[in-house]
Amino acid sequence: MAGSSFGTLYRITTFGESHGEALGVVIDGMPANIEVNIDELHTELLRRAPGQHAVHTNRREDDRPRILSGVFEGKTLGTPICVMVENTNQRSGDYDKLKDSYRPGHADRTTMIKYGIRDHRGGGRASGRETLARVIGGYFAKKFLTSMSFYAYISQVGPYKLEKDVPHGTARGEINIPDETLTNQVIAFLNDCKTQGESAGGIVRLSITGVPAGLGEPVFDKLKADLAKAMLSIPACVGFSLGSGFAMTQMKGSEVSSDSKHFGGMEGGISNGEEITMDLAFKAPSTIGDKAKEGRHDPCILPRVIPVVEAMAAVTLADHFLRQSAYASFLPSDKDQ
Amino acid sequence: MAGSSFGTLYRITTFGESHGEALGVVIDGMPANIEVNIDELHTELLRRAPGQHAVHTNRREDDRPRILSGVFEGKTLGTPICVMVENTNQRSGDYDKLKDSYRPGHADRTTMIKYGIRDHRGGGRASGRETLARVIGGYFAKKFLTSMSFYAYISQVGPYKLEKDVPHGTARGEINIPDETLTNQVIAFLNDCKTQGESAGGIVRLSITGVPAGLGEPVFDKLKADLAKAMLSIPACVGFSLGSGFAMTQMKGSEVSSDSKHFGGMEGGISNGEEITMDLAFKAPSTIGDKAKEGRHDPCILPRVIPVVEAMAAVTLADHFLRQSAYASFLPSDKDQ
Amino acid sequence: MAGSSFGTLYRITTFGESHGEALGVVIDGMPANIEVNIDELHTELLRRAPGQHAVHTNRREDDRPRILSGVFEGKTLGTPICVMVENTNQRSGDYDKLKDSYRPGHADRTTMIKYGIRDHRGGGRASGRETLARVIGGYFAKKFLTSMSFYAYISQVGPYKLEKDVPHGTARGEINIPDETLTNQVIAFLNDCKTQGESAGGIVRLSITGVPAGLGEPVFDKLKADLAKAMLSIPACVGFSLGSGFAMTQMKGSEVSSDSKHFGGMEGGISNGEEITMDLAFKAPSTIGDKAKEGRHDPCILPRVIPVVEAMAAVTLADHFLRQSAYASFLPSDKDQ
Amino acid sequence: MAGSSFGTLYRITTFGESHGEALGVVIDGMPANIEVNIDELHTELLRRAPGQHAVHTNRREDDRPRILSGVFEGKTLGTPICVMVENTNQRSGDYDKLKDSYRPGHADRTTMIKYGIRDHRGGGRASGRETLARVIGGYFAKKFLTSMSFYAYISQVGPYKLEKDVPHGTARGEINIPDETLTNQVIAFLNDCKTQGESAGGIVRLSITGVPAGLGEPVFDKLKADLAKAMLSIPACVGFSLGSGFAMTQMKGSEVSSDSKHFGGMEGGISNGEEITMDLAFKAPSTIGDKAKEGRHDPCILPRVIPVVEAMAAVTLADHFLRQSAYASFLPSDKDQ
Repeated sequence: MAGSSFGTLYRITTFGESHGEALGVVIDGMPANIEVNIDELHTELLRRAPGQHAVHTNRREDDRPRILSGVFEGKTLGTPICVMVENTNQRSGDYDKLKDSYRPGHADRTTMIKYGIRDHRGGGRASGRETLARVIGGYFAKKFLTSMSFYAYISQVGPYKLEKDVPHGTARGEINIPDETLTNQVIAFLNDCKTQGESAGGIVRLSITGVPAGLGEPVFDKLKADLAKAMLSIPACVGFSLGSGFAMTQMKGSEVSSDSKHFGGMEGGISNGEEITMDLAFKAPSTIGDKAKEGRHDPCILPRVIPVVEAMAAVTLADHFLRQSAYASFLPSDKDQ
Repeated sequence: MAGSSFGTLYRITTFGESHGEALGVVIDGMPANIEVNIDELHTELLRRAPGQHAVHTNRREDDRPRILSGVFEGKTLGTPICVMVENTNQRSGDYDKLKDSYRPGHADRTTMIKYGIRDHRGGGRASGRETLARVIGGYFAKKFLTSMSFYAYISQVGPYKLEKDVPHGTARGEINIPDETLTNQVIAFLNDCKTQGESAGGIVRLSITGVPAGLGEPVFDKLKADLAKAMLSIPACVGFSLGSGFAMTQMKGSEVSSDSKHFGGMEGGISNGEEITMDLAFKAPSTIGDKAKEGRHDPCILPRVIPVVEAMAAVTLADHFLRQSAYASFLPSDKDQ
Repeated sequence: MAGSSFGTLYRITTFGESHGEALGVVIDGMPANIEVNIDELHTELLRRAPGQHAVHTNRREDDRPRILSGVFEGKTLGTPICVMVENTNQRSGDYDKLKDSYRPGHADRTTMIKYGIRDHRGGGRASGRETLARVIGGYFAKKFLTSMSFYAYISQVGPYKLEKDVPHGTARGEINIPDETLTNQVIAFLNDCKTQGESAGGIVRLSITGVPAGLGEPVFDKLKADLAKAMLSIPACVGFSLGSGFAMTQMKGSEVSSDSKHFGGMEGGISNGEEITMDLAFKAPSTIGDKAKEGRHDPCILPRVIPVVEAMAAVTLADHFLRQSAYASFLPSDKDQ
Repeated sequence: MAGSSFGTLYRITTFGESHGEALGVVIDGMPANIEVNIDELHTELLRRAPGQHAVHTNRREDDRPRILSGVFEGKTLGTPICVMVENTNQRSGDYDKLKDSYRPGHADRTTMIKYGIRDHRGGGRASGRETLARVIGGYFAKKFLTSMSFYAYISQVGPYKLEKDVPHGTARGEINIPDETLTNQVIAFLNDCKTQGESAGGIVRLSITGVPAGLGEPVFDKLKADLAKAMLSIPACVGFSLGSGFAMTQMKGSEVSSDSKHFGGMEGGISNGEEITMDLAFKAPSTIGDKAKEGRHDPCILPRVIPVVEAMAAVTLADHFLRQSAYASFLPSDKDQ
């Protein structure tokens, strides 16, 4: 049942139930001598914290990280970094009625079948709260992937969508949508959802720039394969597509080849030095009806999932960057002959 | 650069370039005492062989497998099974002109950047021919996953698509489309593509039945995550969606929850005992124009990718089945309390 | 630089520097439904705590464990268990003079070469204090390996040694030597060492009973190979021998075969159901001279390493027990034909 | 039951039973652009081939390697290298009488318990013949570890032993003993063993020079830990000791520290740039009596195990060299401050 580690050289191992003592992560394989900053890390965690916007759950999570190891006098030691966040504001009593009921679409029943036991409070290990550990892993990854930039945004919520991709780095607005009109439409839509005890899904677009060519390990650890795994491991993620993705299935070869942007920054599963792009589908949360109206659940997780998507991308790229670096001394000095 | 292994307990390691001496696979972690049959295996390999239909490449590959180890008197020994297929019919000379050119959308240029060297003949390691090793891995996996059934079919080629899903096991016809009208449309379309030096992509639908509830290891090795990785590792695969996938992004929570089929057989990334379903997007092959008209390339890989998709699913399920089995003795006898 | 995980299915990942915020471990792959007890765990940790005997360092470590995750209402959940121990009693100032000096035989200089940075306080990550995380990992392993018993003892310190092996479970006395005369000799010897600023090494004998036949995975993950790795990963361990070990090198085949005890409980690297035995060599600590006379270092680590040796054995067996269990359903019902 | 892979970045996966179709290895993670030579490889394999000296088994093995993949025009491609050796000279009939008997000290009985089936011919997977796959893995490792030199020799057979270590590279004589007198004693001794149906064990000393400081990954993948695992995975290996090993257990700290040679080239489990040394204990083969007199078994495996020991060391160092190389760009330019 060991499935809580991700990565080969840059490897994160997460732990924690949503209503247990604490959640956290051990990052093994972090380069040494990298300057890190607890306030920066805290700021990154706040990006996924609930309660920041009216469309979110009204729960509040302080999520103060505490670095237990691997950092000395502001620099990484190269040893495992453990960061924990205590669960200070979890009202377990709220969940007593869930003890004997399984919510459709949640992991309640499958968890019980798999383990024969579960922590029923707030989803336990299956809670979206687990993703804060991933954001921590992403923070450290980005600190040494200095050439790269990770930029995710919401391109669709329910029936509302962006007409076209926006440039990498476009300002995202209050709920991570880089368009004012769409932002307003979605806020109105989500407020309706909340009132009706409804929930909504949508699509996240991710762009990564500054990735050197040559990352990705054929034939199973292709960059597209490991990114797909990284994304599908996020709760509620139900789809992944690279570059022009499903739209490419209707294009003829000449059309696909007419613009390398369709490939999404990879050829043969290896980064080609261009912008890496992908779409991620998230389903509507399964908490609906009266339970949803109580307000302790997000009617839509997309605004808060943005930093998680970026973090998982950074963790994946960190691993592949190091894997390729191991062979740097064996490459001809003029690589692209 | 080690990336040619997949799986933890049931682990396949593939090797081979398309025009090297041989391709093959080592399967480590196969249960002992399983009856296997070289003719069955050969039949399975023929499902992905080219030259079986007019819409395919007119290359022919005999692909006779040879079991080098791990099988004794018709039964598996529990030791690593190595199966090789010699490259007897590869005309390397055909590829001399590719030595100094990089084909867009192929791995040619990225391979050169990554390794500083490449076998330019027929795509080398990046060739679709590598997938025969996966089919072998899938054959052995299916031999002990006796409760499970793997069924993939083409649901779309270019603009032509099935109106709705077909039942698991529906007869697939000559090019793996379970509908006669669509089959005829697609054959006509692909013949046109061939004539024009064009190529086409499409969508494969995969259904897996008989999967016990409880498979998948939170939080990173969720079943959906490992299946996504398995599928995206296939050449030309550019998208993965679980259950109702991208269509779910437009559904409200009440609609998603109204029919468990939308979830695709998993909740919380753990199998729930229902039919597992997913869609896989494949882009059109990058070989177009005069080169494509020569006829040694498929204008569309979907008909031949069907057994590869089923094999990768079987390999993934085999691994997860064994991982969960390791804990069987610790489960309460009445698991679903 | 990721090297802080051990095991495939039962996997421990340790973290922490000796004078950082905390040390601890994440245990991934623990079976669910196992009753555990924080007081029992605390008692186990006290077995390796310093300050319990005059021959030890006079440092005191409280080492109260705190379970952060994976346990709910006294039972394991099957999710990752994180246990941390805060470093409350570490006097970092004591170590300022070590900042710019490398102690021979310690990891000081090699750590600096490897990472370009180090936490010089008390050995940092290379400190023996890291081993408490292993003891925690061993505690949980033993909770489900109910048929097995792990028993280690000191058979030699410096020139003083036991004449012959003692039966599994013999009472071990105040410094883990199962013989009163030898205990007194060693105490006198170690007190002399302390006075002289000297240190001493020795040999630990480990016996494991109740191991079912069939554990160990040829050809690289043989039980003897993984146990050797487990033991050699312990600080100051410089030798491992199985069964009659180095003494066997002088025996002829007929003598080796005359008594299966020589084999140490394995044939072909697979457990044969008999008692597993091994010897472990530990070198004298490198802290000698005036530094040693200050009394904050053990003149001999063997008394305190006993629970660490048992823990690493338990962790290794836990992993192999689960790996073999994964295949239980494929074995003929009468295995030993 | 997957246990046939070794290494993280440089990873070998071996396959094959002694009397099956073929044995071989897949090497994944080999650097690209390395010149290799099939004749050199063949020569390396002949170093472990039987029948080269009167004290060996009189079986003959041609062991012609065939490179199936990963090498193109004399250079490595960076893709998996599969090398196979066909079993052309195996007389299976010789072993029919073993079908229903278990030889003590062999893996016969434990294999049957573990798998419920076995290939009884010549030890099957547990045969020493499996080690030729390791020698192949070592050949490729050495090709890019150009600064390193691996030198093993026999220091003891039965009661006969070298008085002291010989310098790295000393000529080894016909049975890999770097001393003429001892060579003659051992030959006489082994001929006596053969006549009497007896067998003998002994000790191999290994020296590795040219290893850069900084290799080894605390805390579990220390260099000493991975080397111990590598060596104990070799059939009949029953002991490992680093540097002065078990002799160090009787030395006081001042003596240990007086000469860094005692440490065997590591401090804290990380290479320190000095010569790496270790001793390996091998037990006498279990085939004795009439069966041994038939002459198809070695009375002592030590002369033939020398290239296997060197190969496993090279494979281990290759992996650690690459793992450390992944972080090279993050080290301060003047590492040893």
